[in-house]
Amino acid sequence: MFKLVNHLSSPAYKKRSLQCFTILGCCHPQQQPFSINLFHHNNNPESRTKIHFRKGIKIGEKATLKRRFSAQDVSDFARLSGDYNPLHFDSEFAKQNGLFKDRIVHGVLVSSLLSNLAGTVMPGAGSIYMSQELKFLRPVYIDQEIEASVVLKEAQSTRKSGDKKVIFVVETEIRSVDNGDLLVCGISRLYHANLEVIEQ
Amino acid sequence: MFKLVNHLSSPAYKKRSLQCFTILGCCHPQQQPFSINLFHHNNNPESRTKIHFRKGIKIGEKATLKRRFSAQDVSDFARLSGDYNPLHFDSEFAKQNGLFKDRIVHGVLVSSLLSNLAGTVMPGAGSIYMSQELKFLRPVYIDQEIEASVVLKEAQSTRKSGDKKVIFVVETEIRSVDNGDLLVCGISRLYHANLEVIEQ
Repeated sequence: MFKLVNHLSSPAYKKRSLQCFTILGCCHPQQQPFSINLFHHNNNPESRTKIHFRKGIKIGEKATLKRRFSAQDVSDFARLSGDYNPLHFDSEFAKQNGLFKDRIVHGVLVSSLLSNLAGTVMPGAGSIYMSQELKFLRPVYIDQEIEASVVLKEAQSTRKSGDKKVIFVVETEIRSVDNGDLLVCGISRLYHANLEVIEQ
Repeated sequence: MFKLVNHLSSPAYKKRSLQCFTILGCCHPQQQPFSINLFHHNNNPESRTKIHFRKGIKIGEKATLKRRFSAQDVSDFARLSGDYNPLHFDSEFAKQNGLFKDRIVHGVLVSSLLSNLAGTVMPGAGSIYMSQELKFLRPVYIDQEIEASVVLKEAQSTRKSGDKKVIFVVETEIRSVDNGDLLVCGISRLYHANLEVIEQ
């Protein structure tokens, strides 16, 4: 149903990122790369979930995921959320005023791919959303192949209660696989109690 | 499973709102109330979906919805999104470092209630997310009763291509029903092609 891909950020990243954040009106200072040593302080060896943190993630590194949402996915999400906005169920309604070519996938369902990447890959299991800003630029249609990506922009070590804890800032994007159009962009801030930043 | 309630904003709203947006670092200018005449330009009388727009929504008006997310809802959302972060499935993992009292509901699933309210009640059917900013302040636990609310803060008429179209700004909140704790807060901007602002 979906595929996970990890790769380093491309030279085109900076330009695309600028495009997004000019629209959002956000700005983040450029930082020099530093390594992050990721490890797991699991005090309970009997823990039911086995966690693997990737070592040596660097600022600028990117994780991506490809996906198509089916009509069944849209129905399932409407049942979960109660969001039966006809834009998601009625093609004729969605086409009125020339707005869309067909009914569209819920924006929040689309953005769930970013939660997937943050919570399972970058920065990974145990991440907790502190904040999320999203700009919805273009519609996502049923069965349209899209690619979600998160890029690690900053990692700040906090030292509360004697523990080193980390706040991650990731830039998020969702693009059309067919033509590369930017569909959704934003910034998320995530907290992680089990990762530690080692500045070099 | 959930209940819809509409009521005018309470005097306590302004204070609570300030609490949220001081944290978010966002600020919206205070506007004098004006009425919005809501009607539906449905050019297709055969449209399968019958839309009822409420008349006379005012700036400051609020729509709310109460809900509990079950363990099954969390599993269903993980299947849809692919987000199997163990914080949502493993109580012991979630309790590590004293972070949480138990496993938690996905933040994006919680925020879907705001999409529900915006897309079906305020401003209603046909609304399209342009942007969303969310601050996740406290965890939401499985079977915890929460109340989502959206308050209409601004409605701006745009006149593109000869049509009057509307951009709505809504302030969003999710609170614990038990103790009123603010769990999530934010701002959403929504577009609507079928509603018109009448300034008085």
